[in-house]
Amino acid sequence: FYATADQDRNLGFGGLDGRGRKKQDPPIIRDLLLSLEDCYHGAVKKIKISRRVMNDDGITSSIREKILSITVKRGWLPGTKVTFEGEGDQGPNTIPSDLVFVVKDKPHTHLRRENTDLIYTAKINLGQALTGTTLHIEHLDGRKLDVPINEIVKPGYKKRIPGQGMPMMTNPDKFGDMIIEFDVEYPNGLNSDQKLYIKEALINNQP
Amino acid sequence: FYATADQDRNLGFGGLDGRGRKKQDPPIIRDLLLSLEDCYHGAVKKIKISRRVMNDDGITSSIREKILSITVKRGWLPGTKVTFEGEGDQGPNTIPSDLVFVVKDKPHTHLRRENTDLIYTAKINLGQALTGTTLHIEHLDGRKLDVPINEIVKPGYKKRIPGQGMPMMTNPDKFGDMIIEFDVEYPNGLNSDQKLYIKEALINNQP
Repeated sequence: FYATADQDRNLGFGGLDGRGRKKQDPPIIRDLLLSLEDCYHGAVKKIKISRRVMNDDGITSSIREKILSITVKRGWLPGTKVTFEGEGDQGPNTIPSDLVFVVKDKPHTHLRRENTDLIYTAKINLGQALTGTTLHIEHLDGRKLDVPINEIVKPGYKKRIPGQGMPMMTNPDKFGDMIIEFDVEYPNGLNSDQKLYIKEALINNQP
Repeated sequence: FYATADQDRNLGFGGLDGRGRKKQDPPIIRDLLLSLEDCYHGAVKKIKISRRVMNDDGITSSIREKILSITVKRGWLPGTKVTFEGEGDQGPNTIPSDLVFVVKDKPHTHLRRENTDLIYTAKINLGQALTGTTLHIEHLDGRKLDVPINEIVKPGYKKRIPGQGMPMMTNPDKFGDMIIEFDVEYPNGLNSDQKLYIKEALINNQP
């Protein structure tokens, strides 16, 4: 098989057609759901397929199962295509179609990716956003990243940790970044004591 | 003249064409910049135009100035069209084109509109967002609206004041709403005293 990373959706129909040769059916496209861990470490995936093959008589056909093996390389991006030539259904008068798998991300518990960057959404409360906190983020290889947040987390603020993203497809020894987004929980109401402290901090006590 | 509020950009070419009658040039489109006050109260606008008109000899032409008067009705929306038929340039063999004015909003110091709603952006600091404040908003007719903000202003929060928007074009005795958006200024840093007060308010002192 071969893998391609381009976005080309022109799946190569025709070419054999109308020249007295057998016609090939259009490729069969299937999702290849991969976890972020698979694409971080690399993996070998076994996929069972059922396909119609022609019997020796050349007239009748039967369904046969087959195991395909896909070697997932580090850094494979969503949209990466893996093509098995001629592994689609066989008909009496056609060349078996190609079987194409297209990489798609399985949802992860707390990370997602944008190209080579990993995105983590930190849920913190307003007190932590203003006075600081430390995040403990479990990475795809099991490492715990301790990320101190000492800056004030304003709406829309993102913290970038260089080199803690996904390996790059073109050079898996290089990595994207981790980007931390913040989902800050605000109190729904404050009592008069709380308001006094807030005023003391933010209105009466300007540095 | 006549005014239309529809979004129809089909400006009525042809119809006279090819039937042995004079041809009409396509309409001349011009912006009619109006202040929100003009559209709130209604107004009369005088506009000086220069146009080419044919002289009596039917061969030569000259530029003549003319004052057009437009009565702006309460609630006119951006995109409202005012058409002066035949007030465009005259040519020797053409019917003068129509002159079409299209209403566009002049920027206002502190208000803008979305359909019949008026949008006000309140700049407040985080202390005010958490402990409350009162806004003083000058309306288009000079009234000062005092708007108490007692709720906690979370990111994205909008406050709607019914009936304090623009008059409606179809019924100028009815009004849209005023919508208050908030631009909350966060401190860039907090000293240790300020952090203690914030912790007291938001972490140690949960209601």
